[in-house]
Amino acid sequence: MAHIDLPDGAPGILGLMAFRPETAKPLNDLAEVLLRGESSLTRGERELIAAYVSNENDCYFCCASHSSFAAAQLPGGHDVVESVKAKESAEAVSPKLLALLTIAGEVARGGLNVGEHHVQSARDEGATDVEIHDTVLIAAAFCMFNRYVDGLGTWAPTDRTVYDDMAQMIVTEGYAASTPGT
Amino acid sequence: MAHIDLPDGAPGILGLMAFRPETAKPLNDLAEVLLRGESSLTRGERELIAAYVSNENDCYFCCASHSSFAAAQLPGGHDVVESVKAKESAEAVSPKLLALLTIAGEVARGGLNVGEHHVQSARDEGATDVEIHDTVLIAAAFCMFNRYVDGLGTWAPTDRTVYDDMAQMIVTEGYAASTPGT
Repeated sequence: MAHIDLPDGAPGILGLMAFRPETAKPLNDLAEVLLRGESSLTRGERELIAAYVSNENDCYFCCASHSSFAAAQLPGGHDVVESVKAKESAEAVSPKLLALLTIAGEVARGGLNVGEHHVQSARDEGATDVEIHDTVLIAAAFCMFNRYVDGLGTWAPTDRTVYDDMAQMIVTEGYAASTPGT
Repeated sequence: MAHIDLPDGAPGILGLMAFRPETAKPLNDLAEVLLRGESSLTRGERELIAAYVSNENDCYFCCASHSSFAAAQLPGGHDVVESVKAKESAEAVSPKLLALLTIAGEVARGGLNVGEHHVQSARDEGATDVEIHDTVLIAAAFCMFNRYVDGLGTWAPTDRTVYDDMAQMIVTEGYAASTPGT
């Protein structure tokens, strides 16, 4: 049971957004620009970073959601997502994305853990400053979303098809459409 | 030196916001509603939660900034802020705020660390569901801001008067005014 009295039926962050629409709006705006806005990283690659960090932080709801959102937008689908989360990803994704995922994992453990050598490895594989910036901010943002969802004790469905269905909504309508009242 | 090429002169998150105004907007909107929007927690109390979490996460820039922003809006000023960060705060703040700070500290270590007993302690001191929600989200948001600022290796002034001067701007103009181009 959640730590506060949330509307019935809405799992994870969805119940929290219904409880507090004032904060839902900037949270969805942030997810929209980071995960779906203009970028040289594909939407699938950015969702994969979100899923990877959520897995590192043991957040079931965010990990399941963004794994499905990544799978829906990446060649290779769920197989690639699962191998990346299990760190068996050397051939599943590009060397650049692998270097960015390493940075994201360090951010999850703490911002000061990111060293110049992590950044240089990403740069050596062709990552730009904006890609490095966005990777760090996506990872940092999921350290927020994960703590928000779990810190308030929300519930999460365990059936993957629920998340795959949500993925279709996100792919077609985006995050802003999730803000209550919009 | 920062890990990416940022505009000269702007420390901490300010350089990052100038680098990427697209993400600065929702970040400032989130800070504005969480730390300055309508709430039964005072602005000083909410800034104190932000400073406390930033201190737990060893983020110098965010801790110094929000310590000054809290001090400018709390009776007791910097003395109260320093005693709370040093966990010598039992008399410095209300029992309710102390219970909420305990929740915030658990969120910093990970969302799953928040137990029903932490929430019950806050409730016993009169905390409402919205206050508990906002405490968790402020703490979670600063786990993002801290990682963003440190994960990209930004610099921070060490002179407290710089942060006290910033506090005057935040108190009078708010966070939205920090978004580049607004």
